[in-house]
Amino acid sequence: MTSITAERSARAEDLKHRVAAFVNEHVIPAEPAFERHLAESGNRWSIPPVMEELKAKARREGLWNLFLPDHGGGAGLTNLEYAPLCEIMGRSPIAPEVFNCNAPDTGNMEVLVRYGTDAQKKAWLEPLLAGTIRSCFAMTEPEVASSDATNIACSIRGDGDSYVIHGRKWWTSGAMDPRCKIAIVMGKTDPDAPRHLQQSMVLVPLDTPGVRVVRPLTVFGYDDAPHGHAEVAFENVRVPKSNILLGEGRGFEIAQGRLGPGRIHHCMRAIGLAERALEAMCKRVQERVAFGRPLAEQGALRHEIARSRIEIDEARLLTLNAAHTMDVHGNKAAKKEIAMIKIAAPAMALRVIDRAVQAHGAAGISQDFPLAYAWACARTLRLVDGPDEVHLEAIAKQELQEQQAKRAGAR
Amino acid sequence: MTSITAERSARAEDLKHRVAAFVNEHVIPAEPAFERHLAESGNRWSIPPVMEELKAKARREGLWNLFLPDHGGGAGLTNLEYAPLCEIMGRSPIAPEVFNCNAPDTGNMEVLVRYGTDAQKKAWLEPLLAGTIRSCFAMTEPEVASSDATNIACSIRGDGDSYVIHGRKWWTSGAMDPRCKIAIVMGKTDPDAPRHLQQSMVLVPLDTPGVRVVRPLTVFGYDDAPHGHAEVAFENVRVPKSNILLGEGRGFEIAQGRLGPGRIHHCMRAIGLAERALEAMCKRVQERVAFGRPLAEQGALRHEIARSRIEIDEARLLTLNAAHTMDVHGNKAAKKEIAMIKIAAPAMALRVIDRAVQAHGAAGISQDFPLAYAWACARTLRLVDGPDEVHLEAIAKQELQEQQAKRAGAR
Amino acid sequence: MTSITAERSARAEDLKHRVAAFVNEHVIPAEPAFERHLAESGNRWSIPPVMEELKAKARREGLWNLFLPDHGGGAGLTNLEYAPLCEIMGRSPIAPEVFNCNAPDTGNMEVLVRYGTDAQKKAWLEPLLAGTIRSCFAMTEPEVASSDATNIACSIRGDGDSYVIHGRKWWTSGAMDPRCKIAIVMGKTDPDAPRHLQQSMVLVPLDTPGVRVVRPLTVFGYDDAPHGHAEVAFENVRVPKSNILLGEGRGFEIAQGRLGPGRIHHCMRAIGLAERALEAMCKRVQERVAFGRPLAEQGALRHEIARSRIEIDEARLLTLNAAHTMDVHGNKAAKKEIAMIKIAAPAMALRVIDRAVQAHGAAGISQDFPLAYAWACARTLRLVDGPDEVHLEAIAKQELQEQQAKRAGAR
Amino acid sequence: MTSITAERSARAEDLKHRVAAFVNEHVIPAEPAFERHLAESGNRWSIPPVMEELKAKARREGLWNLFLPDHGGGAGLTNLEYAPLCEIMGRSPIAPEVFNCNAPDTGNMEVLVRYGTDAQKKAWLEPLLAGTIRSCFAMTEPEVASSDATNIACSIRGDGDSYVIHGRKWWTSGAMDPRCKIAIVMGKTDPDAPRHLQQSMVLVPLDTPGVRVVRPLTVFGYDDAPHGHAEVAFENVRVPKSNILLGEGRGFEIAQGRLGPGRIHHCMRAIGLAERALEAMCKRVQERVAFGRPLAEQGALRHEIARSRIEIDEARLLTLNAAHTMDVHGNKAAKKEIAMIKIAAPAMALRVIDRAVQAHGAAGISQDFPLAYAWACARTLRLVDGPDEVHLEAIAKQELQEQQAKRAGAR
Repeated sequence: MTSITAERSARAEDLKHRVAAFVNEHVIPAEPAFERHLAESGNRWSIPPVMEELKAKARREGLWNLFLPDHGGGAGLTNLEYAPLCEIMGRSPIAPEVFNCNAPDTGNMEVLVRYGTDAQKKAWLEPLLAGTIRSCFAMTEPEVASSDATNIACSIRGDGDSYVIHGRKWWTSGAMDPRCKIAIVMGKTDPDAPRHLQQSMVLVPLDTPGVRVVRPLTVFGYDDAPHGHAEVAFENVRVPKSNILLGEGRGFEIAQGRLGPGRIHHCMRAIGLAERALEAMCKRVQERVAFGRPLAEQGALRHEIARSRIEIDEARLLTLNAAHTMDVHGNKAAKKEIAMIKIAAPAMALRVIDRAVQAHGAAGISQDFPLAYAWACARTLRLVDGPDEVHLEAIAKQELQEQQAKRAGAR
Repeated sequence: MTSITAERSARAEDLKHRVAAFVNEHVIPAEPAFERHLAESGNRWSIPPVMEELKAKARREGLWNLFLPDHGGGAGLTNLEYAPLCEIMGRSPIAPEVFNCNAPDTGNMEVLVRYGTDAQKKAWLEPLLAGTIRSCFAMTEPEVASSDATNIACSIRGDGDSYVIHGRKWWTSGAMDPRCKIAIVMGKTDPDAPRHLQQSMVLVPLDTPGVRVVRPLTVFGYDDAPHGHAEVAFENVRVPKSNILLGEGRGFEIAQGRLGPGRIHHCMRAIGLAERALEAMCKRVQERVAFGRPLAEQGALRHEIARSRIEIDEARLLTLNAAHTMDVHGNKAAKKEIAMIKIAAPAMALRVIDRAVQAHGAAGISQDFPLAYAWACARTLRLVDGPDEVHLEAIAKQELQEQQAKRAGAR
Repeated sequence: MTSITAERSARAEDLKHRVAAFVNEHVIPAEPAFERHLAESGNRWSIPPVMEELKAKARREGLWNLFLPDHGGGAGLTNLEYAPLCEIMGRSPIAPEVFNCNAPDTGNMEVLVRYGTDAQKKAWLEPLLAGTIRSCFAMTEPEVASSDATNIACSIRGDGDSYVIHGRKWWTSGAMDPRCKIAIVMGKTDPDAPRHLQQSMVLVPLDTPGVRVVRPLTVFGYDDAPHGHAEVAFENVRVPKSNILLGEGRGFEIAQGRLGPGRIHHCMRAIGLAERALEAMCKRVQERVAFGRPLAEQGALRHEIARSRIEIDEARLLTLNAAHTMDVHGNKAAKKEIAMIKIAAPAMALRVIDRAVQAHGAAGISQDFPLAYAWACARTLRLVDGPDEVHLEAIAKQELQEQQAKRAGAR
Repeated sequence: MTSITAERSARAEDLKHRVAAFVNEHVIPAEPAFERHLAESGNRWSIPPVMEELKAKARREGLWNLFLPDHGGGAGLTNLEYAPLCEIMGRSPIAPEVFNCNAPDTGNMEVLVRYGTDAQKKAWLEPLLAGTIRSCFAMTEPEVASSDATNIACSIRGDGDSYVIHGRKWWTSGAMDPRCKIAIVMGKTDPDAPRHLQQSMVLVPLDTPGVRVVRPLTVFGYDDAPHGHAEVAFENVRVPKSNILLGEGRGFEIAQGRLGPGRIHHCMRAIGLAERALEAMCKRVQERVAFGRPLAEQGALRHEIARSRIEIDEARLLTLNAAHTMDVHGNKAAKKEIAMIKIAAPAMALRVIDRAVQAHGAAGISQDFPLAYAWACARTLRLVDGPDEVHLEAIAKQELQEQQAKRAGAR
């Protein structure tokens, strides 16, 4: 890793060490209290007080909005510099929010920074950067294959000074959170426009009449409370036309810009999950005895530990390489690299975590270890932001084009 | 499959068709009501009324205790005859209980049939066969590696006419069920006896003072209500000496006899799960459209469907072969065959279900399809009744011995 | 396996034991002499005398033409009965010919039995059944994708009483053998006919003017001498019209009938290869010491032995099931089952043999053990008689149709 | 890749482009002539003239001894700088020798540079650097498990001013080459010394009486002519004591220093092989038509192309990272990183090449494409310089130690 780390600024290195220390000393020890609140408060959709305490502490220490490349409101780090921080946050499911670096708020804040009007920024970006409200992103729909984004059916119809939004969304992550105040909604403003100009994004406050949070979805039995993944009905919801982002027909354009960094963050967090699983596995097998000797002396388990180390390091290097490509050549030029990590990192995490689960015996699938939940999170990543199939297709298309161009050039 | 089916009796074939029809017409359609009761009754540890209705109906139709090889109380089927019935029941998580064929009651009933005294049978076997009570099996312990059963630490100490049981168990499946009245507890009666004679099994009514159900465990976020998997504390629990099964020091002997059929049932149910997942996958991809054509036209998906069909059929044939070996040569002689299916069937089910999940997009991991839950069930099977590692080791040991004997014979 | 073996006749069981004894006592011990002849005779395309000696001996013992279901010239065994014999022959690359059961002669003899005229039988079938000549099958062409048989371009043009054959074939196995006298050639008689009626098969004696064996092809460095895989040019080769098989436009029909049994034979032989590799692996790891203990005590190796046993048994059961389906329902009805084993058996053999190679260290890839060559043979099976991709597609198509029909039936 | 490339010197970049151009323009086009000479000269152990022509040309252009970190005789490149050059050379099996960068001469030259006396350098290093002779490395023995180097049994006994060497070696690569003049032989000088001080290395001219090249070994049917892998008997071979390298008992020390760079070269070449295979695969599927459309439109094939790109890039980054770790922290500190690539790169190459083979149909396994041979080379890499098992064990050991240390530090 050294060769890549070498290029990071001293400030980024310092932040990395401070985030690591904060996660180890404050966040991971707070996980049980967080869980306990959800289990015992009688309302899984309420925020455990420890979260706001941790947020306040992190903000005081300057470990806040680290994801934001913009020097104004954020840390101004490159993707390559932010990547290791993001990995460390990924070690704990509650860590990203502590540093105000959790999806989908990060993506939404980036969108507002880049494309928001002053009024939009004032109303929504400022409280989001301050961590006083949360947001959600309503794109996926239950009735159509989300792998093909042109399928999106939710209508955004102009009507005088208003847009009227009508449709049904799901996997609107964060919408169950009582602090969630604003949704970015993707829908069709013009079904007759060219394929990639039909869609737009509008800001919809969650308390607008007609917005109805229907139910929480579960992920392998987990509800991901208190944020959750909601099915949300938009029933003739009316917002002012000034709520549009960037302009009509520019939904795809925003989505493309939004997804690159989001994907790399997901991947880095998956690597953090995998590292924590490998640590847990090593600890377990060194401490647990069967048939008269520690599990760590079993050859097959040792091979799995070795393979996990190899696979984690490969995925990390691939992700750092994508981050660097984004920094140097831009998100668009890094399209293939981003698609590649989107395939590699979740698949790696699933393998590593599964081995750790198995090494823990039945405990590994229970609530007593973070492994089963980590597995469910990693499994989700093979579907969110486009399923594997879409990314494999995109990589193949580009590879075939590049190979063809190379052959043409060689002639 | 014909060659094997051919050997089954006409009665077994008839039962197979009736069970299949019952599951399709009555059980699968009742799954939503079952789930709804758990979600809405305010108590996940209460029994949905639909279950008792289904049980009554199945019993009336003679589809009851089909697992029991004994002609007295059961159907008197061979393992090879019961296997396809068990597979069909495995298609729905709520089906086995409907036919009074659910773990761990099946194993416990078999133990009582084989080893129970008349008084034990009267007290516990009869209501179990009638489906009026449920039972659990307390073997695994949180503090030791359950892959090595000699690790078990729970003490069963003789004291006058009583045994005093002290220890902590977990993954005591079914103990959360309000109808669960009796536990078979494995523990040490003589720590100084030879390694496989230290353990005994005793019957412990759950209402005995000192028995405390500590908490339910979750499986990838699922609580498996209303049966659940419990952590249970036995704190100086006193039962009469007549509650012992078979005699002191014979716990391993019973466990060995108990586990063979149980494993084959688990494997057949896993195959049923996989078949249902493949059906769901085919349906989904034939109905869902992306990029202008049904998913079913995507070549990579088609290959996965083909591979799933191959893998399911291989696992089924291997399991039927093990069933037949048990029938013809006995459970002990079929030890290797049983270990082989214990590895093969869950691994196959996990692959098949995972592909089905992916083909469903995000819906596949949610509560809207039975796939994520099926995956969690199949994953559990790589751990229960001995983790993969123990079975692989047993197969290797026997294979190496057999190969050595063959070489010696060839000289 | 018992359940399936049980249906075999006593005669088939007897043949199985005699073939096994013959292979162990006579064939495998003759492998070195066979190899030595090829290496030292100065001509790799000459027949080692030991082969004709073994053939004479096998014929005397009645272990001859066992593959042929026809009671006239063959053993009259069902596919289920022949399968274990074929597996045993598969253990040695030189065994099938010893029993006159080697491809492509078996397939060619079947074609002649079924479709040959009396004159064709007299001229070619009789010496083939007697083992005095060999034959080849010229179908695959270098210039087109053989996965799509309609691509075949070789022309068979009628001209008076003759056909004139023009085209280039390769992978014409056996054509290098000096005893090879006759080829069955597939080509186009009518390019304007419907897609599956364009092709015909004709008998072409190899000494016909215009037939030119261009060169031997290698398989991962092996030339498969003395039979070999040839590239053969047919340059305006003229044969009498009476050499056609079955009639013009019936090439596909013959090919379909020919390939079923051939595929099952390939798969059974692959299973034999895998069994021999697993035996070799067990022997090696029990005899070889590293780091102070036999390799057999290394846990990871033991897991691989266990997995190999599971995978071999699964593939064998699947193949026996396909054989039985062919016996009971016919080759056409067993199409899906045959495609399934065509995928499963070679893939299994490759995994099992590769593990055995690795357990042997560098010796495993050398000429000192039969493993590297076995691997190359198994790898070839993923391509011959249609590559994996074609069979996966066929299975998927049929599975999707069946599932759709089942859903329609359930409504 | 940019981030890492960025650190390379302009000179290294320039060399990379020149080597790439040379390989594409001169080496790959010469492969057929090289093969033809071997096939047609009547002696596979003679050197095709085109090789000496290419060597002369490369030397004239300054593309010579690029592997050597020493500025005196070599290019003075870091491992990170040499790695991409080595990858490019790996694209063609005949390329490394063209640049005087082929194993085992590179390792032998490094040993002589580091540990040779002036006399040894004059006699053997100078002609090796000039490319006028070749050398071999005799370490592996047929009778013992080479995974455990302490097994080595060849004796090197002091006798007056001489050492007497007696033992049998195999996989002595290059010993078949008529230009091969010198062997470095590893053997035991003191069987009673501590385990890692028993072994020594001596220089043995191949024309010394008692040295007998017994036979060439094959690799999956390939003889790797004209260099070959020999079995060599050393029968009471007598050399002056001045032929020892570094001193008695220092064989392991030299081996350790020798193997690090050698392993990284093997891995980079494997990556080059994989890249060439992926190129060939893309070309094939874009040009070949089946069922009415180019193979490149088949979804499953596209997924395989995408996966291949991901896996190649991961392995390359891991290897570059190991190279950089060696440069910055030394070969010893990079032990784990080197073991990791030794596992990852060959396994990746095998997967990528196998997919390319399959995409080529039967042509892929023949001599008409370089794929089958590339596969055999990559397979060999899972065994040479220590089999996978040894490296996995080494990685696991170090990972477990590091994790334990981290836990201890966190307390």
